[in-house]
Amino acid sequence: MLIQASCFLDFTCEFPVPTIFMLRPKSGIGQFVMRDELQVSPYVAMTEFADTYGNLCQRLVLPAGQCQLRSTVVADCADVIDVDYGAAWTPITDLPDGMLHFLLPSRYCESDKLGDASAEITRGCNTGYEQVEAIRQWIHTHIQYEYGTTDSSTSACDVLETKKGVCRDFAHIGISLCRALDIPARMVTGYLYELDPMDLHAWFEAYIGGRWYCFDATQHEPKGGRILVAYGRDAADVAFATHFGAVTLNDMQISVEEIIA
Amino acid sequence: MLIQASCFLDFTCEFPVPTIFMLRPKSGIGQFVMRDELQVSPYVAMTEFADTYGNLCQRLVLPAGQCQLRSTVVADCADVIDVDYGAAWTPITDLPDGMLHFLLPSRYCESDKLGDASAEITRGCNTGYEQVEAIRQWIHTHIQYEYGTTDSSTSACDVLETKKGVCRDFAHIGISLCRALDIPARMVTGYLYELDPMDLHAWFEAYIGGRWYCFDATQHEPKGGRILVAYGRDAADVAFATHFGAVTLNDMQISVEEIIA
Amino acid sequence: MLIQASCFLDFTCEFPVPTIFMLRPKSGIGQFVMRDELQVSPYVAMTEFADTYGNLCQRLVLPAGQCQLRSTVVADCADVIDVDYGAAWTPITDLPDGMLHFLLPSRYCESDKLGDASAEITRGCNTGYEQVEAIRQWIHTHIQYEYGTTDSSTSACDVLETKKGVCRDFAHIGISLCRALDIPARMVTGYLYELDPMDLHAWFEAYIGGRWYCFDATQHEPKGGRILVAYGRDAADVAFATHFGAVTLNDMQISVEEIIA
Amino acid sequence: MLIQASCFLDFTCEFPVPTIFMLRPKSGIGQFVMRDELQVSPYVAMTEFADTYGNLCQRLVLPAGQCQLRSTVVADCADVIDVDYGAAWTPITDLPDGMLHFLLPSRYCESDKLGDASAEITRGCNTGYEQVEAIRQWIHTHIQYEYGTTDSSTSACDVLETKKGVCRDFAHIGISLCRALDIPARMVTGYLYELDPMDLHAWFEAYIGGRWYCFDATQHEPKGGRILVAYGRDAADVAFATHFGAVTLNDMQISVEEIIA
Repeated sequence: MLIQASCFLDFTCEFPVPTIFMLRPKSGIGQFVMRDELQVSPYVAMTEFADTYGNLCQRLVLPAGQCQLRSTVVADCADVIDVDYGAAWTPITDLPDGMLHFLLPSRYCESDKLGDASAEITRGCNTGYEQVEAIRQWIHTHIQYEYGTTDSSTSACDVLETKKGVCRDFAHIGISLCRALDIPARMVTGYLYELDPMDLHAWFEAYIGGRWYCFDATQHEPKGGRILVAYGRDAADVAFATHFGAVTLNDMQISVEEIIA
Repeated sequence: MLIQASCFLDFTCEFPVPTIFMLRPKSGIGQFVMRDELQVSPYVAMTEFADTYGNLCQRLVLPAGQCQLRSTVVADCADVIDVDYGAAWTPITDLPDGMLHFLLPSRYCESDKLGDASAEITRGCNTGYEQVEAIRQWIHTHIQYEYGTTDSSTSACDVLETKKGVCRDFAHIGISLCRALDIPARMVTGYLYELDPMDLHAWFEAYIGGRWYCFDATQHEPKGGRILVAYGRDAADVAFATHFGAVTLNDMQISVEEIIA
Repeated sequence: MLIQASCFLDFTCEFPVPTIFMLRPKSGIGQFVMRDELQVSPYVAMTEFADTYGNLCQRLVLPAGQCQLRSTVVADCADVIDVDYGAAWTPITDLPDGMLHFLLPSRYCESDKLGDASAEITRGCNTGYEQVEAIRQWIHTHIQYEYGTTDSSTSACDVLETKKGVCRDFAHIGISLCRALDIPARMVTGYLYELDPMDLHAWFEAYIGGRWYCFDATQHEPKGGRILVAYGRDAADVAFATHFGAVTLNDMQISVEEIIA
Repeated sequence: MLIQASCFLDFTCEFPVPTIFMLRPKSGIGQFVMRDELQVSPYVAMTEFADTYGNLCQRLVLPAGQCQLRSTVVADCADVIDVDYGAAWTPITDLPDGMLHFLLPSRYCESDKLGDASAEITRGCNTGYEQVEAIRQWIHTHIQYEYGTTDSSTSACDVLETKKGVCRDFAHIGISLCRALDIPARMVTGYLYELDPMDLHAWFEAYIGGRWYCFDATQHEPKGGRILVAYGRDAADVAFATHFGAVTLNDMQISVEEIIA
């Protein structure tokens, strides 16, 4: 399906603030970017680079005063996500070298502390897709989606205590519980068609049966129509904006629409 | 300056033909891509990857029958290119590891056979920028720009005999003569504002004084307004289209315009 | 100076355990590996790959029963480390793209929580080398080096409370406090000549004045004679052994000697 | 099988000569390096980096006067190479992105000129392994192995005229003929157990049936016991020594022995 997504941001700064944005998706497995546009007003020189995960990062200095950015993309992506209850857990010895990285604990995903919790949640499951789906459903059932209950320093373990969070936190718990079972897992940010309430979104992927599968604990059931913007180990790797200075975000508007050709 | 460039291609194939295009520029040193769009009609699934030089490569299968592609980009790039007659030749021992690669002979650049020619052409020059500019001017003066005199198997040595070629050939000679002097050199394809006759363009870059400088032997003097699409050792690395089968190119339209904001 | 270092490990497992080791250094800035040898007994097939930081990782399955490994290296490295009190803090806008990565919080380095602590510790310092040296000395003075007080889940914030740890913890605090000041910092593991007590060692590096400088808070003053084995954001990236199963480490012997040619 | 291989080089230079060596193998698919040692006398500072293919490259400046290097390696490698007459040609559309690179013409492999020759040589073969084996055998039968008949500027087309060459030339022809059939092919340098006459060796690999297979046109039949040192498109990428200045090679001794554990 063809999706057009856009992210509008309106900032005010007292002083110039160096900033790194991660707003622009690239083509990859499962999506092809037909059109991509980034506008900034007033006009500010920008540069772009790819980080260690291949994510596109835009660098600029937000000027003192007001500044607005609009990132728009049209991409061809899957309307349904792949589901395969038969996908089996991959023995460590068979994991490709590049996947091992995603078994490790990270800033917001203290998987090294969640072995027991994960074994409990997946008790009775066949190893592999079933375990991850059990994790996904457990989070969907036990964690309440509520704005304002967490912030950028909240980790998976923190949320497991309060039982409240937003998409970022749901993903962190999913990732941590998967890694505790030696299932490689990573964070994904991007756009989701018909997300309600509409926002930039985060979910996770687990590597089972020789490939990555999408899992979103904020949704009741598997849902397609996603444009991936960035991958990483957790939120520390995929922040849509990293500001090195004080910035006020006045407004943020996200839209995701299907283009009927 | 803001430039909008577009490349329109119209093909006919008797059978489906797997094809790799290198049409879409990316942001880098000297340019930032504000907008990028790729349309194909009839719609065909495409994938994209980055090659070893970081160039974006689009893969698709041109269907039997007619197919049209249009690639459009808006980029912020330099209106003048940097010139520095004082830029010195960098001793081999001081070249960054990644530059050594561009000292080697390649498919169309038999630099290993052009040591004497290069020494002759640059006799009396200080080493560095002066040498490369002497090479650039020598090519501009001695090689005649003429369509239809070369093809995709023509090398630098071939053109040095016939003394006729197009931008691709001018660049190959420049690269070969530079490498013969142990100056790293590489091929660049892209768009040039006010190129006459208008076409996809090729030129070269030489690494002197610790950075890459742009040299275009098809132009009378240094000229800015360029959008870089791909880099490589020579034409074998930067073909805008590589077809694995028989294809007829019915039409190709290039346009490059300045956007006055 | 030429240093020969070796790491001997003796394991017992009840069942085969997939393991990743990070024992073998590679040549890089500041060191050249003259000789490198890895022996395993009983003989077990191994493979090797480089992770996202370029660190060499050896993969094998420790067999049930006893297994011994010995990694030996002879490397040419600096006998004194570089010190430069004039090295200035690099504005974010001037940091190379690849350094931005090391400004981010990570699993054991909650730099996002240590802004105030870092400002306090470096009060009165010129920005740059002075700040990092102040951090290094603060850790050396305030944190007690003591085995058995921390484990593999201990973070920098944890150690700042207990004030006790080992080299790993000293490095984590150093990294966290640097990042809180927007100074890129990374963890290094390797060998240190005349380390007492002798062990595999960890320290950190900070990026100031356009390059990485070595800082070791476990030492009274700057000390050379180091062979770097791995780099990363923190201990999660540079574990010398990651076991996916239960393993008993029966013995570990490290030796580091100077070779007088 | 465990193989110990060594390369001894003795040079004399009138002036210091910057040089890049590609002597040290690394672990990869099919081999694990147990021990690796590089000695140089008189002692000269060296650095090492990995090129775009991942090959290890050693940089140094050969001093005026005499200089000797000895590179020794002990590696675990396959005693027989894989052969599979059923391995099928992979359609272009199914080739992994990274393989496309090896379909292109290169400095010494003018595959773009050898379409007819290749079709002739492989007439009647099933596509895939059979074609490449037919190419291998054709070269073995029609090209005479003779020292002194070619040099570092000789290309595949040159050798197809004279019908004489050494391992480097045999490999170039094999690579060119494969690419002319849209079979990805690459050059490999390294050591071969029981090579006669003993020397540093070159052969080629072709990508068929989803993996790389080894083909050596200098040998009567498939032969294992190989330590790979470098990969690339052709000799321009894998020269064991690239000198930027005049050097006399006084002596070169290669030895390859099996270690019976």
